[in-house]
Amino acid sequence: MSNRAESFLVGLIGDGVMPSLTPLMHEREGDVQGLRYLYRPIDLTELGLPGQSVGELLTGAYRLGFNGLNITHPCKQLVLEHLDEVTPDARRLGAVNTVTIRDGRFIGHNTDFSGFAAALATGLPGARLNRVVQLGAGGAGSAVAYALLTAGVQALDLVDTDPARCAARAAELSGFFPDQLVSARTTAELPQLMPLADGLVHCTPVGMAAHPGVPLDLSLVDPRHWVADIVYRPIETELVRQARARGCDVLDGGRMAVGQAADAFRIFTGLEADAERMRSHFLELVAAEEVPA
Amino acid sequence: MSNRAESFLVGLIGDGVMPSLTPLMHEREGDVQGLRYLYRPIDLTELGLPGQSVGELLTGAYRLGFNGLNITHPCKQLVLEHLDEVTPDARRLGAVNTVTIRDGRFIGHNTDFSGFAAALATGLPGARLNRVVQLGAGGAGSAVAYALLTAGVQALDLVDTDPARCAARAAELSGFFPDQLVSARTTAELPQLMPLADGLVHCTPVGMAAHPGVPLDLSLVDPRHWVADIVYRPIETELVRQARARGCDVLDGGRMAVGQAADAFRIFTGLEADAERMRSHFLELVAAEEVPA
Repeated sequence: MSNRAESFLVGLIGDGVMPSLTPLMHEREGDVQGLRYLYRPIDLTELGLPGQSVGELLTGAYRLGFNGLNITHPCKQLVLEHLDEVTPDARRLGAVNTVTIRDGRFIGHNTDFSGFAAALATGLPGARLNRVVQLGAGGAGSAVAYALLTAGVQALDLVDTDPARCAARAAELSGFFPDQLVSARTTAELPQLMPLADGLVHCTPVGMAAHPGVPLDLSLVDPRHWVADIVYRPIETELVRQARARGCDVLDGGRMAVGQAADAFRIFTGLEADAERMRSHFLELVAAEEVPA
Repeated sequence: MSNRAESFLVGLIGDGVMPSLTPLMHEREGDVQGLRYLYRPIDLTELGLPGQSVGELLTGAYRLGFNGLNITHPCKQLVLEHLDEVTPDARRLGAVNTVTIRDGRFIGHNTDFSGFAAALATGLPGARLNRVVQLGAGGAGSAVAYALLTAGVQALDLVDTDPARCAARAAELSGFFPDQLVSARTTAELPQLMPLADGLVHCTPVGMAAHPGVPLDLSLVDPRHWVADIVYRPIETELVRQARARGCDVLDGGRMAVGQAADAFRIFTGLEADAERMRSHFLELVAAEEVPA
């Protein structure tokens, strides 16, 4: 481990990132691959810094020898103006969650989208993708919708409590995928939409410890639907639990979390991460958190 | 290695630090102790930054999760105004080469002085310290002189090509050690001084690859003198080689380099470094460098 060229220093910039499991996932994978790997949470909340400080933090990270950074709320859009290069997918999404630093140049990527795509492919192999209902069209929802359309979904029904945001997202995605149908819908339309859908994807905070409950009337979910959640704390959300009980194929939120981390690891290091190994570790970490103190 | 609390991120700020062996020494010792340890060189020359940027780099390092930094030329004095606390020895020396970051506070230490003191104690145990001649009264020379006086040298003859600097250093040191005698001398006085001295300490760049040669007329060195060099590239300087050939006890410059690194490791981590193990590694690294390509 004494070769300086094989060491990696990365971090995660965002609000409230201290409890993130991403640093531990990366470090464990780096260890297994024999790398010197250190991943620091850079918590804007603890530092008392606004999202606008992301540019200054990037400059500092370059000077101090970081290889790259993950970027989360509220900086995924704010970071764009500080980048020298952005991948076409991240450019279209208007959001970057992974920045590599190469010779002082900042290059932006989006592994939220690619991580969900990988999760879908590995966690629900062979799932029918003709028509899908997606709940939630915020930042994470945009990346997921983009991944669904890239994966071949022919008709995507987007549902959001903010109709204007929902319409804007649908219009934008329609522009990128002109041969596919993206529609802005409302919760009231779910009874009509669900019978037509192959699967349901959930991208709102409902089901997180702070937002308990389910995001829709579960009687609308049939065993023939597959159900994907992106919430992963807890890993077994009420939606995942009830959908599984009804006999649905399910994709828990951990798959996306692991997918984005595995992609970021590859982008930072140039080495493939073993996503199944990272998922095992992730499940250990989540289980350790969920043990009552 | 998955416990975040046990990981250490440190760096070295200064001009031309890229080839420094300090990062490798620290990382190897961290590895042996089972720590996640990453040490980044932060080379102002490569970054095109002036020494005055050290304050901004410290702020960045705090925000990005560094535990501490080593500081070298040209920042050892410039860093002082950015520190919240400075150890009494570093304050007296007016120079800091090690900064720890604790809860956003910057605390300055000087391990150049303590590293030389440790080197002297372990590399020349029992050396007579009544009267010593020291060549070179620059930054490193100040730390070494301070260490010699702390170690109990009763009369220290400082020789420097800059008489004003030499006189200022001697006056300053006399103020800190009022019961010991510190005198500013010239090269011309060496024939009178050496016969009175127990040992000779060399703190100029002479003997480095870029400054070949010896720093004084070797006929002035007797077998009864001990001779200490702080140059360590090469580890076997002309002075060390010839003094050893004359039968002198010698202290090579690697002992100080290792001593300051071992002290910095302890200050950064709170864990004792094994200085002999670090020295073995250091000698390996130096030997690898000295193999002709």
